[in-house]
Amino acid sequence: EIQSIDYKTGHRTVLLPGLINIAAFVPGLVTAGSRDFHTVTKASVAAGFTMIRVMPLGIEGSVTDARVLKIAQLGSRQGALCDYNFSVAATSTNAEQVSQVVADVGSLFIPFNHLSGNISKVAAVTSHFAAWPTDKTIITDAKTTDLASVLLLASLHSRKLHITCVTTADDIRLIALSKSKGLKVTCDVSVYSLFLSQEDYPQCHFLPTAQDQASLWEHMETIDAFSVGSLPYQLAIATKEAATPAVGIADSLPLLFTAVSEGRLTIDDVKMKLHDNPKAIFELHDQPASSIEVEFDRPYELQKSRVWSPFIGKIMRGTVQRVIFQDRTVCLDGEVMRDAGSGKDMSAHSVSLHSSAV
Amino acid sequence: EIQSIDYKTGHRTVLLPGLINIAAFVPGLVTAGSRDFHTVTKASVAAGFTMIRVMPLGIEGSVTDARVLKIAQLGSRQGALCDYNFSVAATSTNAEQVSQVVADVGSLFIPFNHLSGNISKVAAVTSHFAAWPTDKTIITDAKTTDLASVLLLASLHSRKLHITCVTTADDIRLIALSKSKGLKVTCDVSVYSLFLSQEDYPQCHFLPTAQDQASLWEHMETIDAFSVGSLPYQLAIATKEAATPAVGIADSLPLLFTAVSEGRLTIDDVKMKLHDNPKAIFELHDQPASSIEVEFDRPYELQKSRVWSPFIGKIMRGTVQRVIFQDRTVCLDGEVMRDAGSGKDMSAHSVSLHSSAV
Ligand SMILES: [Zn+2]
Ligand SMILES: [Zn+2]
Ligand SMILES: [Zn+2]
Ligand SMILES: [Zn+2]
Ligand SMILES: [Zn+2]
Ligand SMILES: [Zn+2]
Ligand SMILES: [Zn+2]
Ligand SMILES: [Zn+2]
Repeated sequence: EIQSIDYKTGHRTVLLPGLINIAAFVPGLVTAGSRDFHTVTKASVAAGFTMIRVMPLGIEGSVTDARVLKIAQLGSRQGALCDYNFSVAATSTNAEQVSQVVADVGSLFIPFNHLSGNISKVAAVTSHFAAWPTDKTIITDAKTTDLASVLLLASLHSRKLHITCVTTADDIRLIALSKSKGLKVTCDVSVYSLFLSQEDYPQCHFLPTAQDQASLWEHMETIDAFSVGSLPYQLAIATKEAATPAVGIADSLPLLFTAVSEGRLTIDDVKMKLHDNPKAIFELHDQPASSIEVEFDRPYELQKSRVWSPFIGKIMRGTVQRVIFQDRTVCLDGEVMRDAGSGKDMSAHSVSLHSSAV
Repeated sequence: EIQSIDYKTGHRTVLLPGLINIAAFVPGLVTAGSRDFHTVTKASVAAGFTMIRVMPLGIEGSVTDARVLKIAQLGSRQGALCDYNFSVAATSTNAEQVSQVVADVGSLFIPFNHLSGNISKVAAVTSHFAAWPTDKTIITDAKTTDLASVLLLASLHSRKLHITCVTTADDIRLIALSKSKGLKVTCDVSVYSLFLSQEDYPQCHFLPTAQDQASLWEHMETIDAFSVGSLPYQLAIATKEAATPAVGIADSLPLLFTAVSEGRLTIDDVKMKLHDNPKAIFELHDQPASSIEVEFDRPYELQKSRVWSPFIGKIMRGTVQRVIFQDRTVCLDGEVMRDAGSGKDMSAHSVSLHSSAV
């Protein structure tokens, strides 16, 4: 990272590589004709994310087989403004269908709370662990007992496992303990979970409690990655605000750099958890032609825009000033250029593939 | 074991040590004034069990603290005809109370399906793992996801864990895999689960399915112990038969030796799983003054008695002929002697205690 200080205004600027959102939620992912994919990639690149990993869970269904993946791929033809990477979702019965799309997706997502029925959960997860290639990551949103269960299975089958959207003290402690015992587990926390809690929204049980949130901050060394996730979208619905596809994306860097400005995070935390670690965990290509410029320390009040945010009216201390993608400035002060360039589907690419085949 | 064959009648007799039922269900355990304890120990000794480990779960509540343990101990003063051993049951909140009775019980039972609420299950189990002394066994009846979860916690905390009343193919496979990966886990299967299935009683989901049962038999080497458990009692209730405290106990040896007679089990299987392994898992005293004589191969039809059995009218090929307890014959051909002797509470004794203190 290259950091500079503007001695006239007193604020700092930092140059970072293009960032990676490892949990991008596209509501209309499996809805034919939806433009949500375009909207999400546009908001992403404007927010400093030059690569997104698309969650395989849409509002109308999940990417569980080749037919649905096709719909998601067609959606991406509406125009992607950053690189992207699909995943496939596990169900109790689709281990066979999943094996037919392995080459076209970057990872397997086990939505532990959505698997139909409880009876054969362990067996279903086991069959996915057995079928899924060892060089591709497995992600899960399992919590509490389910989390412990899937951690055991990963351990017994010697599989790497990534836990997405950790929200509770119990879960982050269990992950910390598992790591300390040598389990190959990584995790991410939604940016919103670090800055909003049930103290702000008592009815939103998907948010951490205030104590949970404190525990997440205490375990910052255990958190491998930050993500956007579907939590902002859930919050918009729960608070009856406009749940648009871009909700939450633009808030990420301003929130994190406000924390940097306040000394609660380091620039390196942000770079590690939004670039280095995501790249390593998911064996993603580097994007050498991508970089971003972030200005921070300077306070400003977050203004209302077309995308709802729970932080409107709050004082922020970070902005993404410039985004360079494919060696061109595609975004300046939040404005996306008309000829912004075109992102590629990187699902089928993996670093290990290159090192062996190319 | 000493085996002999009666060449006149063609049946065999075997001398075994006094057997151990590691899951004795006493319905009135926590009910003041109940004579169930007397009834269960009497039926046990008549059936060849000279030692029982009492499940801490009664019909009206569980042994969760010193006060309730006192009730159970008073119940045992009604007269115990075999040695016995109490346990304490974990709840979401009683780790503190449990620590006050550690010295008076042989093990901690985590009734995973009875812990109140799901939210803090992992945390509750973790707090029990942290508080319970490492030299005393932890037992659980966890199944499916809960089983995987508690196995992980046992593994992370390097604790021995005994799984009681395994009934499904998934669970026995998970235990087999966990054992093969070095986890310190043991398990028992209720004798009824080996001989009755949902094919016999479609409404009884606590019984294994026919496929589950086949899997249990296939994994005989994974099964460390047989037990009586509460399954016979549950079956009596589900079939609207008389659910008496002794139900199921007398059937155990006849069923198992019928299987020996048919070549499905060996005498050593029975001795290992009803004596050697239970003694090792729970670090129980040996009972050198106890032994039993079992006759098998001779077919007979199981007759109706005061205690209901689902096997009445079935052909059996094994009977407990003589039980010696405290160096005296206390039972002959199923008849308990008037001066049968008196069992002792062995809860506070452990082999490791003796090897260090005596
Ligand atoms: Zn557009
Ligand atoms: Zn910690
Ligand atoms: Zn990079
Ligand atoms: Zn490539
Ligand atoms: Zn009596
Ligand atoms: Zn096996
Ligand atoms: Zn013995
Ligand atoms: Zn002793």
